[in-house]
Amino acid sequence: MSQEPEIPFAVRESIEQVEEGRALAPKFDEHGLIPCVTTAAATGEVLMLGYMNEEALRRTIASGEAHYWSRSRQVLWHKGATSGLIQRVVELRIDDDQDAVWLRVEIPGDASCHVGYRSCFYRSVPTGAAAGQALHFEEREKVFDPKKVYGDAPNPTQL
Amino acid sequence: MSQEPEIPFAVRESIEQVEEGRALAPKFDEHGLIPCVTTAAATGEVLMLGYMNEEALRRTIASGEAHYWSRSRQVLWHKGATSGLIQRVVELRIDDDQDAVWLRVEIPGDASCHVGYRSCFYRSVPTGAAAGQALHFEEREKVFDPKKVYGDAPNPTQL
Repeated sequence: MSQEPEIPFAVRESIEQVEEGRALAPKFDEHGLIPCVTTAAATGEVLMLGYMNEEALRRTIASGEAHYWSRSRQVLWHKGATSGLIQRVVELRIDDDQDAVWLRVEIPGDASCHVGYRSCFYRSVPTGAAAGQALHFEEREKVFDPKKVYGDAPNPTQL
Repeated sequence: MSQEPEIPFAVRESIEQVEEGRALAPKFDEHGLIPCVTTAAATGEVLMLGYMNEEALRRTIASGEAHYWSRSRQVLWHKGATSGLIQRVVELRIDDDQDAVWLRVEIPGDASCHVGYRSCFYRSVPTGAAAGQALHFEEREKVFDPKKVYGDAPNPTQL
């Protein structure tokens, strides 16, 4: 992989700087990670919640393609390198206290989830008067067959 | 506050059960928390990334109003209890490996962020050819004055 791009991160000096300023001063957690919400730019659908380390965030900013840190595999993860489902960044946002990232992306094939669905969030949880009922599948059919795309690669889900 | 509602969480027994099943079997991290992406149901805009402990998730499911765990204040947080900006749950989704929640909500006053903006993600980070440039304010004006809403309450942002 190419050399890590030189994207400067500012030192976090004050609440005003972090909340109201124009300097990127991301906060990484005790594992060196920042959570990233990724939505489909066209529909607003949440596709996944991933995590980035410093290098993944820098590579995403510089390349305009989503990079994450895979917590299950403990490697830098250029999303789509295996499946071809590259996420092209339409917009990258940072939140008020700069400890979360929002990526709006375009994806080929309209699929993002390793299980084969469009979004990782393919099931809803009944609430209110329906609380306690079984999960409901909001996506009825898989967009692709994960066995064909990933072959024998280990499933990233951990119990 | 009322007694914690009885919403059962299933034991996580297999990848197939977690990914393909209809039982809610959420995974909480080493701090007892699960991240929650909250979007505006009407627009798809990401409003905030919050965290829930078991009680917050149960109360959200049972009441249909968003509850979080405040990491800065270390308390259960019924969003809007101070500001009046209650988040009414339109849909609650869980992701493939059930370690993240997506809430689609309606909010009164069209504002969610403690800084006064509609979304916590009011700034974008230039990418690709524009990488390294200053943050850009995507929201030009605050929806409310946080001093009027929160008074002298301490700012939750931590450096």
